[in-house]
Amino acid sequence: MEEGKFSIRKKVYYHDTDAGGVVYYGRYLEFLEDARTEFFLSRNIQMKILAKEGTLFVVAHIDVDYRKPALYGDEVVVSAGIEKVTASSIHFRQDVTRGDDLLIEARIVVVCIGSNFRPKRLPDGFHSWA
Amino acid sequence: MEEGKFSIRKKVYYHDTDAGGVVYYGRYLEFLEDARTEFFLSRNIQMKILAKEGTLFVVAHIDVDYRKPALYGDEVVVSAGIEKVTASSIHFRQDVTRGDDLLIEARIVVVCIGSNFRPKRLPDGFHSWA
Amino acid sequence: MEEGKFSIRKKVYYHDTDAGGVVYYGRYLEFLEDARTEFFLSRNIQMKILAKEGTLFVVAHIDVDYRKPALYGDEVVVSAGIEKVTASSIHFRQDVTRGDDLLIEARIVVVCIGSNFRPKRLPDGFHSWA
Amino acid sequence: MEEGKFSIRKKVYYHDTDAGGVVYYGRYLEFLEDARTEFFLSRNIQMKILAKEGTLFVVAHIDVDYRKPALYGDEVVVSAGIEKVTASSIHFRQDVTRGDDLLIEARIVVVCIGSNFRPKRLPDGFHSWA
Repeated sequence: MEEGKFSIRKKVYYHDTDAGGVVYYGRYLEFLEDARTEFFLSRNIQMKILAKEGTLFVVAHIDVDYRKPALYGDEVVVSAGIEKVTASSIHFRQDVTRGDDLLIEARIVVVCIGSNFRPKRLPDGFHSWA
Repeated sequence: MEEGKFSIRKKVYYHDTDAGGVVYYGRYLEFLEDARTEFFLSRNIQMKILAKEGTLFVVAHIDVDYRKPALYGDEVVVSAGIEKVTASSIHFRQDVTRGDDLLIEARIVVVCIGSNFRPKRLPDGFHSWA
Repeated sequence: MEEGKFSIRKKVYYHDTDAGGVVYYGRYLEFLEDARTEFFLSRNIQMKILAKEGTLFVVAHIDVDYRKPALYGDEVVVSAGIEKVTASSIHFRQDVTRGDDLLIEARIVVVCIGSNFRPKRLPDGFHSWA
Repeated sequence: MEEGKFSIRKKVYYHDTDAGGVVYYGRYLEFLEDARTEFFLSRNIQMKILAKEGTLFVVAHIDVDYRKPALYGDEVVVSAGIEKVTASSIHFRQDVTRGDDLLIEARIVVVCIGSNFRPKRLPDGFHSWA
């Protein structure tokens, strides 16, 4: 793992798996979201409070490579790092690893919207992340 | 199936299963909810509209017997019938069957609440269901 | 919708939504999978039987654009069409629409693997889909 | 919390919630399962290994009271304790709390089955839990 890369640990439980015996491909999006949520919290961004002020974040684009499967009982590490920040969006680069194995690579674009569902400028602090 | 018993058909997809190769025990609660939603709609109750008027329905109690597992690709029938209606709650009796096989039996109590999350009297029409 | 485009209808139930009041971004992957499953079945491909013979299909790559949200109670149409077939993979082009509204656009690459988890040549019939 | 009661901590993420803004009633079954899994692990029971030896555990009955809702961002404690052990089943008593608030009370019966899906005697160690 790179120096300073933000990450969380997740354990794979039964409800994460499917009849193939591996984590269901849609479930990883929950793992990725949890890492982004904790990344925001680590920078003192509380999406719950922003939401009350009419600033919401929605996923606009995802691009995910599934390289190797995670299995029941595995402990995986889910990272979240910023690739780019634009006026109203944050481009995340995330991966899921198990030890030295790279399981998942993802690029996730999150857009800041107002209560009218239209894109709006990110709050000021975010731009210093670029 | 009893005469006139309300039911919907559901197909078991991959995301409904777990590594045991059968439907995950928590997933059946989604099947049961879908049947209740369609039951309400069949009686012209739109929970979406009631919600806007400050009348919400929440599940207060569930009691579920898991008799046989549903498998990937199975087509099952999910029923919803009313056992009892009280001032502010509806007691459902539901099951999941596959052909002649009884897979799941459930009793679900749904309570009517206001926007303050306190129980409130069911809208008038509901009491004629008792 | 294009002439002959394969699609299924899905209704949005409560369990598909999140606290934002819209369908959770990971849930669409279940909708997309269901459409691919039905597409296979419409061509007499039973993945369950192929699996028993040691031929499995796994998702290797997804690219999804989220354009507009689907809401509780919406009825949406989920399509599945083939863009390309290679020796061991099928490239799907899928979308989710609600009436004339395009909600989701997705490209999904499914790879054929053997019980050793290594890519293997698609069964013969598949190549005529290209 | 009682002295010595086994429990795990869980954080409520966005994917756990529904359009009502609270944790979906079916999701709690995942929380409860995770606590049982960790309870087993704390006693050196690896269900993954038992499964390979043809000893499986399935949920046969659940009875759940939903008292108060958990909200997005909440940190909850999920307990798992044994009420009774029979020849082939374990009766769990579990709850979900947030600080002093009791949110969920559950009784879960898990049955030990063989690869023929028939109930079988629990491995010896389990009976000392009664």
